[in-house]
Amino acid sequence: MPIYKAPTRDTRFIVNEVVRVADYTHLAGFENATQDMTDAVIEEAGRFVSEVVAPLNRVGDIEGCTRHPDASVTTPTGFKEAYRQYVEGGWPTLVGPEAFGGQGLPHVIGFVMEEYMCSANHAFAMYPGLANGAISAILSKGSPEQQAKYLPKMVSGEWLGTMNLTEPHCGTDLGLIRTRAEPQADGSYAITGTKIFISAGDHDLTENIIHLVLAKTPGAPESSKGISLFIVPKFLVNDDGSLGAKNAVSVGSIEHKMGIHGNATCVMNYEDAKGWIVGEENKGLAAMFVMMNAARLGVGIQGLGQAEAAYQNSVLYAQERRQGRALTGPAEPDQKADPLFVHPDVRRMLMDAKAFTEGMRAFSGWGGLLVDLSHKAATAEERQEADDLISLLTPVIKGYGTDRGYQTATDMQQIWGGHGYIAESGMEQFVRDARIAMIYEGANGVQAMDLVGRKLPMNGGRAVQAFFKLVDDECASAADSGDAVALVAERLGKANGELKAATMWFLQHDMTDRNALGAGAYAYMTLMGIVSLGLMWLKMAKVAAAALAAGTDDTLFYEAKLVTAKHFALRSIPQAGALRREIEAGGETVMALPVEAFATA
Amino acid sequence: MPIYKAPTRDTRFIVNEVVRVADYTHLAGFENATQDMTDAVIEEAGRFVSEVVAPLNRVGDIEGCTRHPDASVTTPTGFKEAYRQYVEGGWPTLVGPEAFGGQGLPHVIGFVMEEYMCSANHAFAMYPGLANGAISAILSKGSPEQQAKYLPKMVSGEWLGTMNLTEPHCGTDLGLIRTRAEPQADGSYAITGTKIFISAGDHDLTENIIHLVLAKTPGAPESSKGISLFIVPKFLVNDDGSLGAKNAVSVGSIEHKMGIHGNATCVMNYEDAKGWIVGEENKGLAAMFVMMNAARLGVGIQGLGQAEAAYQNSVLYAQERRQGRALTGPAEPDQKADPLFVHPDVRRMLMDAKAFTEGMRAFSGWGGLLVDLSHKAATAEERQEADDLISLLTPVIKGYGTDRGYQTATDMQQIWGGHGYIAESGMEQFVRDARIAMIYEGANGVQAMDLVGRKLPMNGGRAVQAFFKLVDDECASAADSGDAVALVAERLGKANGELKAATMWFLQHDMTDRNALGAGAYAYMTLMGIVSLGLMWLKMAKVAAAALAAGTDDTLFYEAKLVTAKHFALRSIPQAGALRREIEAGGETVMALPVEAFATA
Repeated sequence: MPIYKAPTRDTRFIVNEVVRVADYTHLAGFENATQDMTDAVIEEAGRFVSEVVAPLNRVGDIEGCTRHPDASVTTPTGFKEAYRQYVEGGWPTLVGPEAFGGQGLPHVIGFVMEEYMCSANHAFAMYPGLANGAISAILSKGSPEQQAKYLPKMVSGEWLGTMNLTEPHCGTDLGLIRTRAEPQADGSYAITGTKIFISAGDHDLTENIIHLVLAKTPGAPESSKGISLFIVPKFLVNDDGSLGAKNAVSVGSIEHKMGIHGNATCVMNYEDAKGWIVGEENKGLAAMFVMMNAARLGVGIQGLGQAEAAYQNSVLYAQERRQGRALTGPAEPDQKADPLFVHPDVRRMLMDAKAFTEGMRAFSGWGGLLVDLSHKAATAEERQEADDLISLLTPVIKGYGTDRGYQTATDMQQIWGGHGYIAESGMEQFVRDARIAMIYEGANGVQAMDLVGRKLPMNGGRAVQAFFKLVDDECASAADSGDAVALVAERLGKANGELKAATMWFLQHDMTDRNALGAGAYAYMTLMGIVSLGLMWLKMAKVAAAALAAGTDDTLFYEAKLVTAKHFALRSIPQAGALRREIEAGGETVMALPVEAFATA
Repeated sequence: MPIYKAPTRDTRFIVNEVVRVADYTHLAGFENATQDMTDAVIEEAGRFVSEVVAPLNRVGDIEGCTRHPDASVTTPTGFKEAYRQYVEGGWPTLVGPEAFGGQGLPHVIGFVMEEYMCSANHAFAMYPGLANGAISAILSKGSPEQQAKYLPKMVSGEWLGTMNLTEPHCGTDLGLIRTRAEPQADGSYAITGTKIFISAGDHDLTENIIHLVLAKTPGAPESSKGISLFIVPKFLVNDDGSLGAKNAVSVGSIEHKMGIHGNATCVMNYEDAKGWIVGEENKGLAAMFVMMNAARLGVGIQGLGQAEAAYQNSVLYAQERRQGRALTGPAEPDQKADPLFVHPDVRRMLMDAKAFTEGMRAFSGWGGLLVDLSHKAATAEERQEADDLISLLTPVIKGYGTDRGYQTATDMQQIWGGHGYIAESGMEQFVRDARIAMIYEGANGVQAMDLVGRKLPMNGGRAVQAFFKLVDDECASAADSGDAVALVAERLGKANGELKAATMWFLQHDMTDRNALGAGAYAYMTLMGIVSLGLMWLKMAKVAAAALAAGTDDTLFYEAKLVTAKHFALRSIPQAGALRREIEAGGETVMALPVEAFATA
């Protein structure tokens, strides 16, 4: 049975010393984020998640969800009670808008909770996770009446929500959707069609579920410019807020998946279901992107969450399991064998995992801050700057975060040897669950194309130039900060140079060879991920060096930050050069062969 | 339902044009390996495996194996009948020794069958696969009486065999085993103990199973120098070859695993079971390594097999699934969307897969040739040379082959998007099944240590020096072979330079810093894998260039080889430099932190 203990010490380091959320309490919407407040929330969130949510991870995997003959769906044993406690504890309301009953805390804190929830129980975390996307869309594009009708109960967690985009023949290419929305005399629409892969599509956690559904109105253009977004509640909501009739939406089946068994991934059938349009006709894509951008950041954090949970279990196993001897001679001669911890190759994997999880936690924290600053910073210029950066980095957080999350889960399973392949260990579940995050909310290849094709050229490259400058400035101010910091700065500076060169190469080929962009996009996303984590490690190394210089009770913690920063600089950053060369190889060999050349038989 | 068609065209290219098996028919044991013969075997093997074995892959995953109340074990529906046909077709006998009823074909051909079998059905392939290891051990270390008693029926496939090494508290560190062997008056031993993770430990495919079991005799040294190997048949075998009493060995349980569900991974209980020693007391490790080395090559080929099967399904999907438009404008304007094949990032994954599978297939073919030449080459010097190389490369074939096999299966699943995460697609099974190959028969970290700690220094580095020379010679003779070949040679030469530098670095640190070796071992194994596949691609590119120059009916095939060679050179070989830098980072950051620094909470 795998363990999980929320990494609150490291979270507090990031929130208080790296992202320094309390520095922003002068801004509207940050007033509540004093250090006392955030420390208390972090510790209590960690306790709740570790004690209530984590113990249900295995049972969720084993039982999965059940669709009953009447098409109703029940979640695994314990999920309903845990969700009740989650709502009772007020956890859904953390970052919710105060106007609709939320606590209005910064996204940095919301992201902490998302990490903990996913580490503890990815499948469970998705129920409220999907609702957040639906809330964002209604908040951003819904009418005041829709907001008043749905948001209070969604923010409180009394109702949950879903996002219905994918259809059997279309996922990424939403212009192809076939679900129809016929306008009705009463201002509503009749929604008919089949949606697939609908996470949390139905369940027994809440009495109502607010589906957000993409569909086409009659005569709409045949492209993504012809899709509209609709609110389709499972039960209609009367004007007094009470529940009315069951809507004509039902679960056709639950998918059998590689992982996240505890979440009901549903085929949803809409048959003249009653829906209400969110925003204007044919403007559904913009509303969908509001949901999607929030969801993409959340999914990147899932990569972190899975990696952290797997890492904790392998740290324990490496202490308990004894096998072989240290290369330098027996470490514990009175035992028959040394713990796995003595083996450099085991430690390599643990250090790589530590460098990723702690670096990614900082990256998420910074991302959360940017989300808030894009709305709440004091000046329009600062808001624009933050918006530029988070727009640029969202595909990196999603793509790089989930790639490395899966890789880390795989490495941590590897430490367990054969025992990690056995279900009881829980290690293989981490791998299976982590795998989905590379696929959903836009497969990572789509993230890479979003980064290279849309985000780089945006406003003449303003965002990426700002990012380069940020990294260079951080490196420049590191010269006198001590050996480890200087080393990290030097290596990071070089990697930033590779990233700039790759960016320049794309600019030169943008017009002449679109396929070269596509062929290099994935390597570019990985390269920017490495530079981003390098930036985080440089920031953390500086904070750690300063804390050690000033004197601290927690020497080990800060010294470990310096060692881990150096580890990342020496062992992950070198990949930057290889990635640049891969990008500069262009698209020729990628595009050269006709389909028939791929047959092997 | 996934498809599989054996890649016989590519196999024949490797066997006939790259490895050139027919060039060796003058050697004893190669006489049968004329091109007519090997072509026929390859095509017929491909047909049998594709038609009979592949269709059972999904049912094996879904049903798994069953342990009944009487402790008997049955395999999934159809396995027994397929195995009967496999035996009837004479497939177990391919490379078996002629003295015991085998066909005595070269290992190159045996490896082809292993690849096809694993592509088609990894779990099924393991039943005969494990028996091969047991046969090798008896052939190499068994007495003439034991060979006469067991080998004919094992070679024919009438009986299967297993390898019983792991115990609950020890896998890699076999010196720790507790299973006891008490000598009996009749010359046999009474074996008592529990073995775990025993693949094909029991089943209904054959009437008898010959277990090879590691155990300790009374007073044996407490290390790997105190283990002995025993034959423990499921049913005792009378002198006339008929079956006698059931032995005291039983299946305690079948493990629940991440994948390879169709293979019964058993907890085996031996309670005073009757066993006969193979070779001498306390010399079990040497006998075990005979099994193990054969098994490790086979497992490396499993990495190839899984990658090939996943690749074929994604090549098909990329043609059928339509989503989005080519970056250069609609490729099929009369359709609503273009096939996935137009997208450079999809093609990147397919080309990477193609470069790995075809390169790895050549590497396996060359490995098979080396195995044979190590026994059958004309001179002692040539035999030693082949033995040096295959000893050096076995951990690379196993470690790099299975790492990249898993990575390729994951990439191929990615092409399917959300549909690849659903069980029905079969894509997620490839990933789950491929995962085990990185773990069993020595986890890949153990392979890396075997390579760096044992194989590099062996005989003063003779083997690795021979490998360097082989690569350099191949590069040197490429200068006038045309653009693509020259490019591959140039890049490969550089990568070989990185490998030499890393090797030199290890030699310099061997005595002073053992942990630096351990910390860099994995990167070194990967680096040598890249150089090995680069070597294969250079060889193949030369053959292809020559064929095109000479004129051929199959222009597309050979042109694709040149493009794919170039793809590997431009997109995989650049990692060599980063891996060298990772190695030269040494062990400092890996070993610096105390255990407590790994706690995050």
